[in-house]
Amino acid sequence: MANSRFAYVRDFELPDRLLPGTFILLRIDGHAFKQFTDAHRFAKPNDPRGLELMDHAAISLMREFPDIILGFGQSDEYSFLFRKSAALYNRRQSKITSILSTFFTASYVMHWKTYFPDTPLRYVPSFDARVVLYPGIREVRDYFSWRQTDTHVNNLYNTAFWALIHQGGQSKKDAHESLRVRFAWPLL
Amino acid sequence: MANSRFAYVRDFELPDRLLPGTFILLRIDGHAFKQFTDAHRFAKPNDPRGLELMDHAAISLMREFPDIILGFGQSDEYSFLFRKSAALYNRRQSKITSILSTFFTASYVMHWKTYFPDTPLRYVPSFDARVVLYPGIREVRDYFSWRQTDTHVNNLYNTAFWALIHQGGQSKKDAHESLRVRFAWPLL
Amino acid sequence: MANSRFAYVRDFELPDRLLPGTFILLRIDGHAFKQFTDAHRFAKPNDPRGLELMDHAAISLMREFPDIILGFGQSDEYSFLFRKSAALYNRRQSKITSILSTFFTASYVMHWKTYFPDTPLRYVPSFDARVVLYPGIREVRDYFSWRQTDTHVNNLYNTAFWALIHQGGQSKKDAHESLRVRFAWPLL
Amino acid sequence: MANSRFAYVRDFELPDRLLPGTFILLRIDGHAFKQFTDAHRFAKPNDPRGLELMDHAAISLMREFPDIILGFGQSDEYSFLFRKSAALYNRRQSKITSILSTFFTASYVMHWKTYFPDTPLRYVPSFDARVVLYPGIREVRDYFSWRQTDTHVNNLYNTAFWALIHQGGQSKKDAHESLRVRFAWPLL
Repeated sequence: MANSRFAYVRDFELPDRLLPGTFILLRIDGHAFKQFTDAHRFAKPNDPRGLELMDHAAISLMREFPDIILGFGQSDEYSFLFRKSAALYNRRQSKITSILSTFFTASYVMHWKTYFPDTPLRYVPSFDARVVLYPGIREVRDYFSWRQTDTHVNNLYNTAFWALIHQGGQSKKDAHESLRVRFAWPLL
Repeated sequence: MANSRFAYVRDFELPDRLLPGTFILLRIDGHAFKQFTDAHRFAKPNDPRGLELMDHAAISLMREFPDIILGFGQSDEYSFLFRKSAALYNRRQSKITSILSTFFTASYVMHWKTYFPDTPLRYVPSFDARVVLYPGIREVRDYFSWRQTDTHVNNLYNTAFWALIHQGGQSKKDAHESLRVRFAWPLL
Repeated sequence: MANSRFAYVRDFELPDRLLPGTFILLRIDGHAFKQFTDAHRFAKPNDPRGLELMDHAAISLMREFPDIILGFGQSDEYSFLFRKSAALYNRRQSKITSILSTFFTASYVMHWKTYFPDTPLRYVPSFDARVVLYPGIREVRDYFSWRQTDTHVNNLYNTAFWALIHQGGQSKKDAHESLRVRFAWPLL
Repeated sequence: MANSRFAYVRDFELPDRLLPGTFILLRIDGHAFKQFTDAHRFAKPNDPRGLELMDHAAISLMREFPDIILGFGQSDEYSFLFRKSAALYNRRQSKITSILSTFFTASYVMHWKTYFPDTPLRYVPSFDARVVLYPGIREVRDYFSWRQTDTHVNNLYNTAFWALIHQGGQSKKDAHESLRVRFAWPLL
């Protein structure tokens, strides 16, 4: 090949195949979305438009990649579980992480105006994605329990927090203070 | 914390910090862009709109991440070199790969209509991104020589190929055949 | 600390913790043992002294590391299975690989003269060790089936091969040739 | 092959090639050698027999593996630097770590009785080995500065500590206490 003199630089690309026989879990998080949701005036605690846009991106990802068998989202994050035998991109970590997270992102941006017709994107959003491997069904179940508990706790807190502000007329600082004492996380 | 019973699942997230003291090279490639450029009727061999959109996304990425000191693009790919001392995201591979590639992608999609005002996006594009580490300046120089040679060879071939079709009236098959014999890659 | 000016070099020691919740399998192989067994005149096809010395080293390893729940050896190799929950050395790969393989080796050399009282070690032996992770019990069972099949096939071949030489008076070359045709591996 | 039904278990052996173009540094440490040197009544602070045996093992390793260009030892540890272009075992991490550390260990045990003719080995020693990659000559120099500083500091401390005991008649506890105040590590 013409460029053989320089082709040795490819030797620095080390293989990154994921362990076979394990469940691949891909979690995608909005990067610096606190600032992003403020800048785009998302309703608090939950903005249905933002959540539906996340769902839209997640659904289009799951239609494109049938190896995904479960998706679970809250706020600005989404978790995707792959079947144990998934062999997409020969299980190469960088390929899975990048292709799927950029697909999700492209879908999010493409359909932004459907959900936010009156709010143009003010700057470029980005997402943080990572792959985690779980060897067994028990860890997978506990992973989703972990995310669901987190969802519940966050929503309970945020609902109370914003109610104190919107209906109670408190400042953010006071609202945090009000909840600090009473919210001793005895839920589990 | 409330979800401590399930929090052990975080132990499966293994650290992925990149070796310090090395040059990080991030290469972003259009995923299945042959099909994508056909579907969106890109001019061949080179579509200035498509190239300028890639440049736009690259420039916005380099403005956002000042650790990038060099960018080089051709066709549907872009390479970004980071300064050796770059410490963004504590050099965690998944964070760098995902946040930067989704940022690039979001910028590409956001500015699509600026460059393709009459061609709506027909489906969701995605990109393949990977990080490679180079220990020294010589390998970095040879990496960019490799990409530049590739650019030159591809453009020479594609220019001749599409000229045989557009000006010579050949079929794609015949054009490939015409070039097969004469193009013995003696360039380097 | 006094050496803080240079201590940054420790940052290059990247973590190498093995995925939790998986079975750790450590396989130790004699390195270049064909030459080693020739030089020390091991009986062929099987030298009971050599096998018993391997067993001795394996037993001492299993006594020292109770996380090992199964050992299986043949010829100059031994496989060790750890319980899934094993947390020795915080599951750090280099520590497990090196400490256990050097322990095995030290035991092999220490007890050499017990099994080879008339054959002093002529040079330094060494072993190749690697860790493999298996997510489930089925893969673990198939791993040991793989080694057992290998044991059976090798022993069948070697027994016939050396019988052709010792009892049949054939040369090594002729013995290989005799077995080449008839030994079509139809066993499984 | 006869065992093809089970051979899929080899797919779990993931590649572990080290980044090219970097200096490989292998450090081998006595594992739990405080106990080992007590049990074998090593002279304190330094036992010439023990140090010479370490040197013997290191020299035999460096003769066997000419890719090693520098060795530096103190106490129960030894560091070995490989030339940047070293390609032994295709730079596979597990092979390098295990074969070289078991060779070192085997040499240590084989030559034990040369240096400790009156002290039989009471139990099996083992070593902890790890590979670290350094991209440039500056980090390599600082690595050895780090080890040399450590050697100097440890020897200064240990020489004073054991002098307080052997010549000063202090207990270990008192000797530590005497040195605690005065030894403020102002050396570098």
